[in-house]
Amino acid sequence: VDQPAAPDVPQPGALREHDAAPGDRFRCVAIVGVGLIGGSLGMAIRRRSLADKVIGIDRGEDVLALANDLGAIDLGSDDLATVKGADCVIFATPVGCLPALLDSAARHIAPDALVTDVGSVKSRIAAAGDRLFGDRFVGGHPMAGSEASGVGSALPELFVGAPWALITHRTDGADTNPSFARIARLVRELGARPVFLTAERHDRLVALTSHLPHALSFAFAAAVAGNADCEAAVNVAGASYRDLTRVSRSSPELWADILLENRSHLLSAVAHYEASLADIRSALESGDRAALEARLRV
Amino acid sequence: VDQPAAPDVPQPGALREHDAAPGDRFRCVAIVGVGLIGGSLGMAIRRRSLADKVIGIDRGEDVLALANDLGAIDLGSDDLATVKGADCVIFATPVGCLPALLDSAARHIAPDALVTDVGSVKSRIAAAGDRLFGDRFVGGHPMAGSEASGVGSALPELFVGAPWALITHRTDGADTNPSFARIARLVRELGARPVFLTAERHDRLVALTSHLPHALSFAFAAAVAGNADCEAAVNVAGASYRDLTRVSRSSPELWADILLENRSHLLSAVAHYEASLADIRSALESGDRAALEARLRV
Repeated sequence: VDQPAAPDVPQPGALREHDAAPGDRFRCVAIVGVGLIGGSLGMAIRRRSLADKVIGIDRGEDVLALANDLGAIDLGSDDLATVKGADCVIFATPVGCLPALLDSAARHIAPDALVTDVGSVKSRIAAAGDRLFGDRFVGGHPMAGSEASGVGSALPELFVGAPWALITHRTDGADTNPSFARIARLVRELGARPVFLTAERHDRLVALTSHLPHALSFAFAAAVAGNADCEAAVNVAGASYRDLTRVSRSSPELWADILLENRSHLLSAVAHYEASLADIRSALESGDRAALEARLRV
Repeated sequence: VDQPAAPDVPQPGALREHDAAPGDRFRCVAIVGVGLIGGSLGMAIRRRSLADKVIGIDRGEDVLALANDLGAIDLGSDDLATVKGADCVIFATPVGCLPALLDSAARHIAPDALVTDVGSVKSRIAAAGDRLFGDRFVGGHPMAGSEASGVGSALPELFVGAPWALITHRTDGADTNPSFARIARLVRELGARPVFLTAERHDRLVALTSHLPHALSFAFAAAVAGNADCEAAVNVAGASYRDLTRVSRSSPELWADILLENRSHLLSAVAHYEASLADIRSALESGDRAALEARLRV
């Protein structure tokens, strides 16, 4: 993985590749939903001085207090209308409620503000964003996170080296929308690597490389937990068990949401995977060593 | 994971828990098969001064030269008869050939030598070991390793904190065989945590927590590689993809061998896993959010 060095404390006057260009800093970034990703964004933006002010908007009073304590936001509000003061609004709530939330927030958002989101499935969100905000909306998806959730697990360097999908209508990636270029710059400033994709292609690709591995890990963890001798099995388990179960400790609420939102692409990925596993199984059943070895040779 | 501190350089006269008791050191340990595990064992035994001498036995002349250069062995031989000088013989070859190799080596092994192995599947090996060596044989399986193979990837601290299955006939673990206690001590001296299991139970448990995750990872990597847009998918992949594919880079030869050796237990584990994944798939198909969330809650 590409690990661009992100300057911790930008030096005024000493411009480097990832520093904001003069006048490029946001006045006020509003982050709607201050969880693991929203909180990490706040920390990263504040630490890199990419905005004069970061406002966190969340219904949880304790969440906002913790976000404040952890330095993720400058101030918090439980009122969605607070987005009105921002020149950049980032939606970081669970993916299922995002299209409706864009709708509710639209009338409060300043007419020249940039709007983006970090949802894991893009088609419905991109359609809502385009309809409501036109060129000012750029959907995004940082491929960063962890099995933890909540602002208490947020990290300012969470995005460093991670791919960050940005949704474009141009399949060649040559998007001339100035908002697109501005969000891509923000993503780079956070240390991430922008990857330009249409919403449909994004959803198809992450079904395979993110949602499918989560489904497999959940299924594997359930198969182990359902074994009568489960405790002894885990006691003698090594690194492959740890690797295959890590993401199964992710939030079931959050992931039921994500998997359902990307249902059709995910079901197609699951079908391909089941066929691939069935190939290995039938080579095992027939005891065909050559066939088995060929199937393990990726 | 339990990480017992392993003393790097044992101080003579300063006995700690993991130090060898006086007179407890082996005169000569012969390691048959100097790959990742055999090489790591040699390094660990030499670094901890657990033997006066470590002999590596391997058919590969270049393997023995590299093992010597890396400090994994004191001397190397391609002649299996070299085991005759050892008071402890450790078999660390691929699992498929191990029972036959025990047979070939038996007539060369000193009548008072301890014999153990590190094979990933124990039933056939334990039966052969018992038949050939009686109480002097104790089957073992360190749950350590990596997707790498070969002595070039060996590490002296590979076993620190790892479970190490030791095969007993006593289901209560109260094995009174003195060889068993001696091998358990060696395992602890290497920084590992002995776990006492019958061969049948070991094979059933590792089918679930080691062989199944390997099969899943191989199947997942094959499903991704078979996708027409594979390159773009990997370009936008995050940590869950990395976790789920790591062990798929393991040696196909080695793993075809292991999976086949544990075929019946593995097929049963695969069946349970397939049912668990089918549960998730059908909740997705029916769009039943409550059922899906329940299935993700392990």
